[in-house]
Amino acid sequence: MPHLRNILEDLELPIDGNGDLSVISPIDGSTIAKVFQTPLNEISQMAERSQTAFLKWRNIPAPRRGELVRLWGEELRACKEQIGTLISFEVGKILQEGLGEVQEAIDICDLCVGQSRQLFGKTITSERPEHRMMEQWHPLGPVAIITAFNFPCAVFAWNAANALICGDPIILKPSEKSPLSGIATLNALLRAIDKFGDEAPDDLAQAIIGGATHSKSLVSNPHMALVSATGSTSMGRSVALSVAQRFGRRILELGGNNAMIVTAHANLDLAVRAIVFGAVGTCGQRCTSLRRIFVHSSLSKELLNRIEQAYASLKIGNPLNEDTLVGPLIDKAAFEKFQSTLNRAKSEGGEVRSGGERVLEDIYSEAYYVTPAIVKMPTQTPIMREETFAPILYIVDYDDFDTAIHLHNDVPQGLSSCIISDNMQEVEYFLSVNGSDCGIANVNMGPSGAEIGGAFGGEKETGGDRETGSDAWRNYMRRTTNAINYSHDMPLAQGISFGRN
Amino acid sequence: MPHLRNILEDLELPIDGNGDLSVISPIDGSTIAKVFQTPLNEISQMAERSQTAFLKWRNIPAPRRGELVRLWGEELRACKEQIGTLISFEVGKILQEGLGEVQEAIDICDLCVGQSRQLFGKTITSERPEHRMMEQWHPLGPVAIITAFNFPCAVFAWNAANALICGDPIILKPSEKSPLSGIATLNALLRAIDKFGDEAPDDLAQAIIGGATHSKSLVSNPHMALVSATGSTSMGRSVALSVAQRFGRRILELGGNNAMIVTAHANLDLAVRAIVFGAVGTCGQRCTSLRRIFVHSSLSKELLNRIEQAYASLKIGNPLNEDTLVGPLIDKAAFEKFQSTLNRAKSEGGEVRSGGERVLEDIYSEAYYVTPAIVKMPTQTPIMREETFAPILYIVDYDDFDTAIHLHNDVPQGLSSCIISDNMQEVEYFLSVNGSDCGIANVNMGPSGAEIGGAFGGEKETGGDRETGSDAWRNYMRRTTNAINYSHDMPLAQGISFGRN
Amino acid sequence: MPHLRNILEDLELPIDGNGDLSVISPIDGSTIAKVFQTPLNEISQMAERSQTAFLKWRNIPAPRRGELVRLWGEELRACKEQIGTLISFEVGKILQEGLGEVQEAIDICDLCVGQSRQLFGKTITSERPEHRMMEQWHPLGPVAIITAFNFPCAVFAWNAANALICGDPIILKPSEKSPLSGIATLNALLRAIDKFGDEAPDDLAQAIIGGATHSKSLVSNPHMALVSATGSTSMGRSVALSVAQRFGRRILELGGNNAMIVTAHANLDLAVRAIVFGAVGTCGQRCTSLRRIFVHSSLSKELLNRIEQAYASLKIGNPLNEDTLVGPLIDKAAFEKFQSTLNRAKSEGGEVRSGGERVLEDIYSEAYYVTPAIVKMPTQTPIMREETFAPILYIVDYDDFDTAIHLHNDVPQGLSSCIISDNMQEVEYFLSVNGSDCGIANVNMGPSGAEIGGAFGGEKETGGDRETGSDAWRNYMRRTTNAINYSHDMPLAQGISFGRN
Amino acid sequence: MPHLRNILEDLELPIDGNGDLSVISPIDGSTIAKVFQTPLNEISQMAERSQTAFLKWRNIPAPRRGELVRLWGEELRACKEQIGTLISFEVGKILQEGLGEVQEAIDICDLCVGQSRQLFGKTITSERPEHRMMEQWHPLGPVAIITAFNFPCAVFAWNAANALICGDPIILKPSEKSPLSGIATLNALLRAIDKFGDEAPDDLAQAIIGGATHSKSLVSNPHMALVSATGSTSMGRSVALSVAQRFGRRILELGGNNAMIVTAHANLDLAVRAIVFGAVGTCGQRCTSLRRIFVHSSLSKELLNRIEQAYASLKIGNPLNEDTLVGPLIDKAAFEKFQSTLNRAKSEGGEVRSGGERVLEDIYSEAYYVTPAIVKMPTQTPIMREETFAPILYIVDYDDFDTAIHLHNDVPQGLSSCIISDNMQEVEYFLSVNGSDCGIANVNMGPSGAEIGGAFGGEKETGGDRETGSDAWRNYMRRTTNAINYSHDMPLAQGISFGRN
Repeated sequence: MPHLRNILEDLELPIDGNGDLSVISPIDGSTIAKVFQTPLNEISQMAERSQTAFLKWRNIPAPRRGELVRLWGEELRACKEQIGTLISFEVGKILQEGLGEVQEAIDICDLCVGQSRQLFGKTITSERPEHRMMEQWHPLGPVAIITAFNFPCAVFAWNAANALICGDPIILKPSEKSPLSGIATLNALLRAIDKFGDEAPDDLAQAIIGGATHSKSLVSNPHMALVSATGSTSMGRSVALSVAQRFGRRILELGGNNAMIVTAHANLDLAVRAIVFGAVGTCGQRCTSLRRIFVHSSLSKELLNRIEQAYASLKIGNPLNEDTLVGPLIDKAAFEKFQSTLNRAKSEGGEVRSGGERVLEDIYSEAYYVTPAIVKMPTQTPIMREETFAPILYIVDYDDFDTAIHLHNDVPQGLSSCIISDNMQEVEYFLSVNGSDCGIANVNMGPSGAEIGGAFGGEKETGGDRETGSDAWRNYMRRTTNAINYSHDMPLAQGISFGRN
Repeated sequence: MPHLRNILEDLELPIDGNGDLSVISPIDGSTIAKVFQTPLNEISQMAERSQTAFLKWRNIPAPRRGELVRLWGEELRACKEQIGTLISFEVGKILQEGLGEVQEAIDICDLCVGQSRQLFGKTITSERPEHRMMEQWHPLGPVAIITAFNFPCAVFAWNAANALICGDPIILKPSEKSPLSGIATLNALLRAIDKFGDEAPDDLAQAIIGGATHSKSLVSNPHMALVSATGSTSMGRSVALSVAQRFGRRILELGGNNAMIVTAHANLDLAVRAIVFGAVGTCGQRCTSLRRIFVHSSLSKELLNRIEQAYASLKIGNPLNEDTLVGPLIDKAAFEKFQSTLNRAKSEGGEVRSGGERVLEDIYSEAYYVTPAIVKMPTQTPIMREETFAPILYIVDYDDFDTAIHLHNDVPQGLSSCIISDNMQEVEYFLSVNGSDCGIANVNMGPSGAEIGGAFGGEKETGGDRETGSDAWRNYMRRTTNAINYSHDMPLAQGISFGRN
Repeated sequence: MPHLRNILEDLELPIDGNGDLSVISPIDGSTIAKVFQTPLNEISQMAERSQTAFLKWRNIPAPRRGELVRLWGEELRACKEQIGTLISFEVGKILQEGLGEVQEAIDICDLCVGQSRQLFGKTITSERPEHRMMEQWHPLGPVAIITAFNFPCAVFAWNAANALICGDPIILKPSEKSPLSGIATLNALLRAIDKFGDEAPDDLAQAIIGGATHSKSLVSNPHMALVSATGSTSMGRSVALSVAQRFGRRILELGGNNAMIVTAHANLDLAVRAIVFGAVGTCGQRCTSLRRIFVHSSLSKELLNRIEQAYASLKIGNPLNEDTLVGPLIDKAAFEKFQSTLNRAKSEGGEVRSGGERVLEDIYSEAYYVTPAIVKMPTQTPIMREETFAPILYIVDYDDFDTAIHLHNDVPQGLSSCIISDNMQEVEYFLSVNGSDCGIANVNMGPSGAEIGGAFGGEKETGGDRETGSDAWRNYMRRTTNAINYSHDMPLAQGISFGRN
Repeated sequence: MPHLRNILEDLELPIDGNGDLSVISPIDGSTIAKVFQTPLNEISQMAERSQTAFLKWRNIPAPRRGELVRLWGEELRACKEQIGTLISFEVGKILQEGLGEVQEAIDICDLCVGQSRQLFGKTITSERPEHRMMEQWHPLGPVAIITAFNFPCAVFAWNAANALICGDPIILKPSEKSPLSGIATLNALLRAIDKFGDEAPDDLAQAIIGGATHSKSLVSNPHMALVSATGSTSMGRSVALSVAQRFGRRILELGGNNAMIVTAHANLDLAVRAIVFGAVGTCGQRCTSLRRIFVHSSLSKELLNRIEQAYASLKIGNPLNEDTLVGPLIDKAAFEKFQSTLNRAKSEGGEVRSGGERVLEDIYSEAYYVTPAIVKMPTQTPIMREETFAPILYIVDYDDFDTAIHLHNDVPQGLSSCIISDNMQEVEYFLSVNGSDCGIANVNMGPSGAEIGGAFGGEKETGGDRETGSDAWRNYMRRTTNAINYSHDMPLAQGISFGRN
């Protein structure tokens, strides 16, 4: 990996370094850099400085704030190749996906620039003469952004671009497994801030390097008006409680256990293509990865065959190689979980049709490449109700569409979902209140790879919140309802008469 | 009170009864009725039945659901006088306010009928050819509505009307201090359901009679998709934690500590009128009651004089008498809190300019009528940062507008607020991000008496949520983001190429 | 028809009368009543009085204006049976459709009541510090409502309910062929105005009886801020020009030439049901009547058979008889047009498969009952591009979906359209920019019978405008964009510096 | 003017040329270039090619179309200085204003990029079970953009950026007085199209050089789905009629006769600053130029003095000189109109307090520099009701606020308006339905210099339409209302039963 050093330099990141946190590449288990963790006792001061920045930033007109985000997008364009490559190094996803992630960050900047001239509230009719009502959306306060290892760039950018146009400073806490990509994305923002000039206050964007203890300290800090956290359900619950305790706000994007229904009217060409990308992309480590398939029994055999065939031709290996489609798992723990889950699946009646093996061990003894697993299950057993962050694809047959939907929804998570069908009744039913209970429900595509224009997030243990597109920006602001009396009298609402005729 | 019996009969409420919960009228301390508390072990079954009702109700088209709410409004119109009177009996507010509360329930029905043909989601452009995106709002699930004693009818109706059009069954848990008015409002709904016919499932609307233990059991039940709770901050925090634990949703409307800024450009006529209704309406027991005034020193003396004059002429007494403007406190505990708060205010340097006395003790020995208190404070002391649910009005002078805003915001609560000023710069600044930090900010009127067309709720310890107008109905639904591929190809978002040329 | 007299009395309409305009029932050609036409020279005074009413009505708070519309809805509920029956008498549509039309008027009242607390404008971010932007929607001015004979009640109510909540007085000009149903609907409004009380100004709702000359005079009057006209394309063009000349506003709902595509994936049960109601409802005299079918050749024969079968069992006759499904044409001219069109169709290669005959001539010598015609066409010929207001259904085969869409769009009108298909790709394509070019595009239902929640109207010669649901209320208001500077400085937009450093 | 040649070269414009249309600089009357007018007989072919381009462009996903507009913005950034300078040369406005105009074009690109991922329609509840409703916005068709001489760049960009993201090709017809700036802006777009690549069809953006005859031919062409025209009321009326004749769409931005009310509570510092920029910016040749002032008599004398003082210090001259604030009139006809209007004003009782003279005649014998005129009028006379495109500022005293508003509105035009007042009641009343009847109503700023985030346009003879921000993009699209039945039944709306039990 000859050019990593150059990339790190270009991105203003420490080369090697001698900090207390080792950043390991899942590609070969080598140490990319050693970075310093933020001293825990600095967090409260950072939060305070963020609050100070807020008092200035909230008064910069939103379209000007949008200009900063536009400059950020320009910076990201300029180093798209580098950050994309770094993501591959640090996360292990293939370069195409690494680049796609940076593109997503660029896209959200573009969207937010436009939004900065909107942030629409409502004017509303009043029941009283010579009164006016409106609601305005005001900046909220400092935003903590806690990201997961698998999307170090895009998820940060979703939150930060929205927060910044909404008038909120940000503090990033990237995953300790992939801090560099997040910091590189932040550095691009800092360069944009430099170009933007004096209107940007100090400490508008800060970062904390560290682990769960750092997160907890940040989450509980009363200055953090909003905590946006991506990760596991247990982490999310802890954030939820900490923030609820102090009446803060939160955006949680937690576990997904995403499924596809392949109906009797499915186009299997589309199905297979959607399945493969959905299940093995990022080596099954996307929150929206496809994990469960419910296939109509009439197509079950053929589908299984075709998936197996497709899996057989997947190139597994170094994600920076152009023809690689499946990179490594993030670390040993992930591999062990992969193994133990497959064992549980087998013990619950599952048949591992293919995959499930560690490969390339001889080349990369410290890295964990695996063959993605296809597991035929007799029905939806308990292990299927859990999210395993690895390329395990469960397949269950169904005969009755209602059963398929029941099984689909019968898990604690509620992030993403999809149906493959050419039949309009099935499709519409799946999208209706009777269908998928997830935050995202797609048709004739996989569950992953959301566009930034729509609100992203899920129900149930996924957290219930939304970020990125649609009007998710409202999470980064507070609403004020205003009634203005410009008459020379003061009538009461609901026609109440109080001590006057 | 000769006609109470008739009213109870009209409203299908128990006359006297022999239950284990005594409902006491604050007017004279007499027992209105004895009702049965719901056995605690029934709550989980009620929740389950509510869930069953949900599975049916969510499939009734929203405009049909709106028709039920229309019928409810008609029922409420038919018994407005009776429920309004009952509210006076049970809560002690004057009849005008009791009627106003029922009118508010009627108004929300009218609004929700129209909304039932909207519940607008978005269609959104997609970055992929022959793809379409949209977001839909779907019914959410059973809604628990926990109301406070002071608004037994309107707050229930706000929540229930929205929930019902949104496809959600409801379970009401009224305050144990004023359950009858809530049940009467519910009975009107049950009559509407009867008229509506078979489309309404059993158990669409239920009620639980009881106290905090009942609430806790209801709040923690996983079937209750949404808990809407009105009351104290400590109750609200407990709800927030219980619901966060299970990733449920909540609407909290908690403490208010609402203030007014009377600037150097104030019209004192408007100010005095707004102050008197705001501070003594419902005997200072509204969540939006006016509690704090910051007055520019140039007007301070005159304002104080005029408020004192106005207070001196307030008729205190039986709230059913037409000329009464101030009824009783809800109970002895409220009176004791009133007294202890005044003592603390004095110890912190406050001067009680008038009021603060118990009156009519000879006529109503078991009821607690008081003279509303005006307390001149040297500055904003700790007692002013607490919400006391009683007619205590603190007045503090200021010289500098920024100071006034600082003091205004320097409390833990964030519900409602107002400014009295003829000066447009002051008014706009107060409504801006630099001004009031409350959910409601009014101009030239008091902090209370919100119209149902705007979103109602507040920031900080008030809970951060919103109910009733604007698009608050979205809290009663879940959002689903849909991407639909109707092409015969399957491009990926962000231009990712995955194993294809 | 023994009870017509009672109905007219109940609806406060002239019984017989001795006016100069004879209202003829298409049921038997008898004269229902003779009403007086409005003297032409009164129209300008009426417009002026409407303007005077506007100056008062626009200041009544919108939710109060909504209350008037609520009362109107109540009045309509009270006489639904009577107006529905009168519509049958006057227009000839079957009672079920007459009642449905009144229900639609009631529905729009319900929707508008809710909307009266919304009429949402936007608050918008400003690029300048201490500036605020918003847009408000204000009442527009008097609205002229010119309706067609076939929907005398509902279309008037759509416009009037919207106009009234938006703050606009109205002047109705009903078709001279069916003025009574319109006046009856207006009389219900006048009763509601009486109940509403003093807030309603005089002349809030007026009517003009007369024909094209009356319309022209009304349309050209500069006080009529908005002209909403339903009818033929040639009438509409004349309105468009007259209003454009004076920079007025207009809503035009003109000719429809509505088609259905029955694809190879169609459910023929649904298709036949949709076709029959769509083509023969109101005897083919709806603006949204189904006139053209493009059917995939694989299903063509079966579909034709089934339609013919269905047509054969249609009961034609007095629309007030419970089992009648097809009533009479409106008058002799309509019948003659029906005949001449069929002749032209034949001359262009069409084969009249069934229908096209006058029937019941012996019983109703002065009325025009016909058997609905099914005409198999070799392709889409010129006559098919014209709208004939009669029950003629053209059927053309197609082999290629793109051809079907091309033929579908290849007419000058653009009101309503539909597809019958179980295939999601076909359905979505039809709804996409490449599909139907109409204002309304339905799936698995006919082109007629729109719900009031959506915007109603069409493209091309249909006029391009929208009324009733969604945000069509905005047509009845004017938008004002407001920028408010509350700073003590005055920066210019676009960062322009003008004579200052 | 040594560098004009370089600028023209940089902007890919003809240097000198030998065409049949001479472009004259109002700075010195010299010929900048001679360009060729488009042969009239080519217009219909251009329209046809635009339609062909439409069929391709409408299928490019909107966010991709946004990418083109982003590239356009980048191109404009790169030549901002040059186009800004060219505008000064060609229109005569000062460089600051020229640059501001280009900035406005850049801003609209930024906004539209974000909007390209929105173009939000609505999902709507249906009254029928297992039915869904939505409305989508689809590309409309080719858009003709006819601009006026005074805003050759920004108004074109407003329309084109919106049109392009909405899926519509454009044809620009710039004013024959300033075609180069428009073409330069178009050339930047063409460069962006080149970079954008193959997805952009040929003829996506075209231009026609010519005058009124060219416009007429373009406007009447049925391929032009939308005509957006800026200019005089008489031009606009002709467009309105031509387009109405063929049921096309239009956006008209016609005459403004913009006024300011300076109330008794005005801050005169703000007033004077707003007045001077509003009245003399672009030498009084903005459609939003300030033309009329109504000042409270208590402040009248002082205001007049201060304006006169301010005017006295205005530097008039070559707009490219840094300290110039007032450039030349566009041509001799404008000067003659200026003179004749002043004469009429005098004959109607006006007193020209200062200005009204031609200056710099000795240096620029072929150019028309004038001293801006201040005319004290006894009341609002007929000449004041006309728009004169020149720096004439009428001032009328008032005593009563209602009179001021009456006079303000008592003109045929309705574009922009403003109030200077610190009094919130006056301000709110001015913004209310009783206040300004214009499309734009500002507070404590002048009538010109609108931000692009709000909808721009006016009422009455200004045309009634809106372009640029808010949701004005909807004018460039067509709305389709969709009802989708995914049940296996087919119920009718309004509960109609048709031949079934």
